[in-house]
Amino acid sequence: MLLYNSQVSGNCYKVRLLLAHLGVDCERQEVDVVDRANRRELLGELNPALRVPTLVLDDGRALAESNAILWYLGCDTPYVPTDRFQSAKVLQWLFFEQYVHEPNIAVVRFWVNFAKQPPCQEVIQARRQAGYEALDAMERELSARDFLIAGHYTIADIALYAYTHVAGEGGFDLSLYPAITAWLERVSEQPGHIRITA
Amino acid sequence: MLLYNSQVSGNCYKVRLLLAHLGVDCERQEVDVVDRANRRELLGELNPALRVPTLVLDDGRALAESNAILWYLGCDTPYVPTDRFQSAKVLQWLFFEQYVHEPNIAVVRFWVNFAKQPPCQEVIQARRQAGYEALDAMERELSARDFLIAGHYTIADIALYAYTHVAGEGGFDLSLYPAITAWLERVSEQPGHIRITA
Repeated sequence: MLLYNSQVSGNCYKVRLLLAHLGVDCERQEVDVVDRANRRELLGELNPALRVPTLVLDDGRALAESNAILWYLGCDTPYVPTDRFQSAKVLQWLFFEQYVHEPNIAVVRFWVNFAKQPPCQEVIQARRQAGYEALDAMERELSARDFLIAGHYTIADIALYAYTHVAGEGGFDLSLYPAITAWLERVSEQPGHIRITA
Repeated sequence: MLLYNSQVSGNCYKVRLLLAHLGVDCERQEVDVVDRANRRELLGELNPALRVPTLVLDDGRALAESNAILWYLGCDTPYVPTDRFQSAKVLQWLFFEQYVHEPNIAVVRFWVNFAKQPPCQEVIQARRQAGYEALDAMERELSARDFLIAGHYTIADIALYAYTHVAGEGGFDLSLYPAITAWLERVSEQPGHIRITA
């Protein structure tokens, strides 16, 4: 398999982390996340949204969207529950991640650390506030359980871990969140865990 | 089942549309999408994001996020493929919908039609431009096939139809998109189809 990857992208890290848990190797092609001029040429035939990660299977078929890739790779492994309701709850958290969490926490981290022309502080602060609300929701959930779904580590934890554990780089204060902090530690202790830099 | 619903929300319409195809009845409780003051009281125990739709099953378990609900209801029906790759491609389009399509096309429609204090025209115009890029991506895909996945009508079509067919209410000109226009017609001809007002 070939992964169009960015080493600083939490969305790409999700895929690398699950592959590490599964012990599966994957070729990587690094894609620039700041200069996007070559995206159409690079990904136009593979991904309608022209984003990374994009995974190309050995038979040439392409799959896009980080959380869809997690689902595909995690099917028939302990990282995706087989029960219909539990698997739908995993998807609930994956959609929460892409709608409520990533557009605020990941985007603020990008603006603060990587963007050539970040928006004004007012815009950044509004997104940061929305990001804190996403963290509040996670804190409530993780105060009651060790992992997001059914007490087991799943792709829901992998998806939410990716940008939560680097939220500090976007100016978020994780010390306000004891349940999240303990969960981050539990995730990092899972067999096969790798860091975002790996 | 009980659906916390808004009759003007495309996200809720997705669920009502799939239920209509399946011939399944569902109780509804209408939720205000403009005045959100009672959201914590209403949905605090059911949905970490406090949004509609939220579905409560007959046994009391709750499921949130429109596309996770589609997945749950569509499992083991013709609306979700059983093949692992095809089902992951359905998820790819569901995540595309929530990350690229809905935050632009649905949000602009909301600002133009329902919001008490919409943002300035510059902000609306930037979102509209991003919405057009989502429509461009759909147009490329639908120029080559009748439905988004494998030539069959699936929950991917239901999810994308919901806000595409009312995009005109947000000032989008769908006459620029012949493949999307023909697809909208094909979707509306599916057995059991209902309108967003139903």
